[in-house]
Amino acid sequence: MADLPALLRAELGDVVVTDPAALEAARSDYSGQRSDSAPLAIVEARTVADVQTALRFAHAHRLPVVPRGAGAGLTGGAMASAAQLVVSTSRLSSIVEINAADQLAVVQAGVLNADLGRAVEPHGLFFAPDPASREISTIGGNIATNAGGLLCAKYGVTREAVLGLTVVLADGSLLELGHRTVKGVTGLDLTALMIGSEGTLGIVVEATVRLLPLPTGDPATLSATFVDVVAAAAASTAITAARLRPAAMELIDARALSAIHEHLDLPTPAAESVQLLVQFDGASAGADAGVALAILRELGAQVAMTVDAEEGERMLAVRRAFHPAMAARGSVLIEDLAVPRSALPAMVAQIRAIEERFGLEIPTVAHAGDGNLHPNLIYTGDTVPAEIWEAAGELFRAALALGGTLTGEHGVGTLKRRWLEEELGTPQLDLQRRIKEVFDPLGIMNPGKVF
Amino acid sequence: MADLPALLRAELGDVVVTDPAALEAARSDYSGQRSDSAPLAIVEARTVADVQTALRFAHAHRLPVVPRGAGAGLTGGAMASAAQLVVSTSRLSSIVEINAADQLAVVQAGVLNADLGRAVEPHGLFFAPDPASREISTIGGNIATNAGGLLCAKYGVTREAVLGLTVVLADGSLLELGHRTVKGVTGLDLTALMIGSEGTLGIVVEATVRLLPLPTGDPATLSATFVDVVAAAAASTAITAARLRPAAMELIDARALSAIHEHLDLPTPAAESVQLLVQFDGASAGADAGVALAILRELGAQVAMTVDAEEGERMLAVRRAFHPAMAARGSVLIEDLAVPRSALPAMVAQIRAIEERFGLEIPTVAHAGDGNLHPNLIYTGDTVPAEIWEAAGELFRAALALGGTLTGEHGVGTLKRRWLEEELGTPQLDLQRRIKEVFDPLGIMNPGKVF
Repeated sequence: MADLPALLRAELGDVVVTDPAALEAARSDYSGQRSDSAPLAIVEARTVADVQTALRFAHAHRLPVVPRGAGAGLTGGAMASAAQLVVSTSRLSSIVEINAADQLAVVQAGVLNADLGRAVEPHGLFFAPDPASREISTIGGNIATNAGGLLCAKYGVTREAVLGLTVVLADGSLLELGHRTVKGVTGLDLTALMIGSEGTLGIVVEATVRLLPLPTGDPATLSATFVDVVAAAAASTAITAARLRPAAMELIDARALSAIHEHLDLPTPAAESVQLLVQFDGASAGADAGVALAILRELGAQVAMTVDAEEGERMLAVRRAFHPAMAARGSVLIEDLAVPRSALPAMVAQIRAIEERFGLEIPTVAHAGDGNLHPNLIYTGDTVPAEIWEAAGELFRAALALGGTLTGEHGVGTLKRRWLEEELGTPQLDLQRRIKEVFDPLGIMNPGKVF
Repeated sequence: MADLPALLRAELGDVVVTDPAALEAARSDYSGQRSDSAPLAIVEARTVADVQTALRFAHAHRLPVVPRGAGAGLTGGAMASAAQLVVSTSRLSSIVEINAADQLAVVQAGVLNADLGRAVEPHGLFFAPDPASREISTIGGNIATNAGGLLCAKYGVTREAVLGLTVVLADGSLLELGHRTVKGVTGLDLTALMIGSEGTLGIVVEATVRLLPLPTGDPATLSATFVDVVAAAAASTAITAARLRPAAMELIDARALSAIHEHLDLPTPAAESVQLLVQFDGASAGADAGVALAILRELGAQVAMTVDAEEGERMLAVRRAFHPAMAARGSVLIEDLAVPRSALPAMVAQIRAIEERFGLEIPTVAHAGDGNLHPNLIYTGDTVPAEIWEAAGELFRAALALGGTLTGEHGVGTLKRRWLEEELGTPQLDLQRRIKEVFDPLGIMNPGKVF
C-alpha cells in the first residue's frame, strides 16, 4: 500500500499532520465516544485550496474523509478511525466581511460562534444561533448539525441564519450556494439541504450568515423554582400558550440542578427543586416578564425576577454549565429529543418513568420554549453499556410516540444512527441515501455517519 | 394511442375533468403567459388517494404531470400543454387541525392562504407568509414557490413557516417529511428541499405549518412621499441600517403609484411622487415609527403617520392593488429580483437607466425591507416581444452584478428558466438536475419548468 500521508504531504506540505497525539485526539469529540483506531492523517487546511486539494487526493485514492471543525460535536460526527483522512477547517478562521448595512457576515468555517458574536456586537448586531458550546464550536460545525441553542425559540436555528455557503464537494470541486440576499428561490434550496448534513455531502468552507439587530434595552429574566418537574414543564407550556415569546426558556430538572450547583460550588438546592429560567428581550421585556411572573406564581412556583442584564446572564450561566457538570460525573450519552411544545410535561413524566424502570438517574435540561430536551445518561468507561442504549432507545420511542423527533439540534452522527430508520421510515431513508450518492458517488464523505 | 383520460376515469371517476373550458384555463396562470395547447385532462383530486392514483397512472404511462393549485403563480409553473396531465390540489381544501398550544396548523395543499389566516386569528395566531395573492393562492402553491409577501423581512418566508410536509412522489408513493416539532435534524432536510421546488420533485398534499402569536397592540404605519425613487430606496436602506425591524416596508415608484391611483379611482398623485410605506408592529411600534419618521423627514420626505390599524391597512391596500392595476394595463412580465438591502438604491437607479435605454415604462414596487423588487414590463398581445425579454435580461444581469438573484419569491417556472444557468452556474445546475432525477427518474414531474 502506498504511503498516502507522504504522497499528500508532497502536494500540501506541513498542513498534513501525522503527529500521534493529534491523530489520537481525532478519534473522539464531545460525545464521549471514541473510535476504535486513529486516522491516517489530518489536513489542517489553511486555505480553501488546501481543502480542495485534500478532497481531490482522497477522491483519486478512494480515501474516506472525515470533516472536522473544533471537534465539539455531541454525536460522534467528527470521529475518525483507521484509513480515514481528517480534513479540519478549524484553521480557516477568518471573518471575511461584516456588512452592517446588509446585516450579514461572511465567515470561514473555522470561526468560533462566540468570536463572531463578539465581532458583530459593536455594530449593534448578533448571530442568533447560540449553542451551549458557542465558545468552542465553529460556525462550520454549527452548520453541519443545524445547531440550535438557548435563543432559537424566538430567533430560529442555524438554518434560519444562513444565506449562502461555499462548499467543497467530494471530488474537490467548489460550489457556491445561496445568496447575499435575504430571499431567493432559484431552483432547489441546496443551501438548506447542506445545513444539518453532517459532512456527508461535502465540506462547508465559508458561509454568508444573517445577523439580527441586538434587542434594545435590558432583558427581563425570571428564575422560577418548582418542586415537581412536570409542573415546571406545564408552566413553560402555559407561557407559550399565553403567546408570550421568551428569548430563552430553559428547564433544569432536580438532578441536573444539583449536579450544576455542585460543579459551580453553589449552595445545594432544596431537594427535588426544579428550575425554569425565562428571559424576555426587546421593548416589551418588562411587561412580558410581568405576565409570565403571574402565570408562574399561579402555577405554584417561587419566582425571582431581574431587569438587570448581568444578573440575568448569571441566572442563565447556571444552565450553560450543564454540559461541563455532566462531563465531570463520568461518561455521558446526551440525548437531544424534541417534542411538540405542549407535550413537554408528558415527555418529562416519561423520563421519570424510564428512570425508575431502569434504576438510572437521568439528569435533564430542556430548551422548553421549543420542546427540545437533553436527558443525560451517565455511565463509566469508554463503551456505552447495553442497558444505557436500551434506556436511550426507550426515551427516543417515547418522544416519537408524542409526535417528536430523535434529535433537535445535535444531529445523528454515529450515536443516533441506530434509530434513524425508525423515525424516517425506509422509503425516506432510501431517498436520502440516493441524494447523498448524487453528491458523493464514491461514498467517501464521512462514511458511517448519519446513514 | 390509448384513450388515457378514459382509462384514468375508469380508475378515478368524475374527478377526471376533460371539459374544454377547464382544459383551456389550465393553459395559463397569473404570469400572463399561455401554453401553446390544452392539456389532456385534469384530475381535480378530492383525496390524497386521488393524487396517488393519478401519479401511479401517469408513472405507468410515462405521462407528464403538471401540479396545479389555484393557478395564481406568476412564472408559468402551473401552465399545462398537450399530452400533459394536470393534477389539481385546489379541492384538497381542509384545515385538518389548528393546534393553538403548539402554535401549528395542519392543512391540505388547497387551503387558501387568507382562509388559513382567518381560521387561526381567533386563536390569537397568524400565518406569516402573506403574498399579495393571499386571497386567491393556496398554501400548496405558496410552498411550491417558497412565497414571500409583505411581512417577510421581519417574519420570514414560507420556508421558515413550514415544519413538515406530506408529498406524493412521481411513482404515487406517499412520503412524510419533517416534524411537528419546531426543531429537528434527523438526516437531510428534505422538507426544505421540497419548498420552492415548483412541482418538479413531487406534489405537496398536506403541510404542517408554524403559526406565530399575533403582535399585541395596534401597528404604527408611515406613508412617506419622495420625489425621487433613489432617495426613497436610500431611505428604506437607512431604516434597516438604523436596526429598526418594520413588519412591512414597501416602495412604490412613480409609475406604479399613478397606475394604482388610476385603478383605485384615487386622486392623481403629484408627478414623480414615490411612496414608501413602513409599518411597525408589537409593543415598540409607536416608538419605532417615531424613529423612522425622523429618518424619513431628514431625508426629505413628506410623511403621514397613523397608529390606527384600519387606517394603516388602507395605506397598505394601495400596495396590494399593484398587480390588479398592472393587469388592467395589458400583458405584464413581472420581474422578481432581489438584491442585498443596501443595493436597493443602485438597483432602482439601474431600472431607470434601462427604462431610458429601451424607451420603456417599467412600473416597479419593492419589498424594500428585504431588497426584493418587482419591476413590471408591460406589452400587448399573447407573446412576450423580444425587446421586453431583452430588457428583462438586462434587469436580471444588473441585479446579479449587485450581488442579487433572479427571483426572490415567485420562482422560476417557464418565464425565468432562460437565466437560471447564468445565476447558478453549470455545475450547480447539473447537481440540481441529478437531485431531481432521484425523485423523478422518468422526468414526468412538471417537465419544462425550472430546469
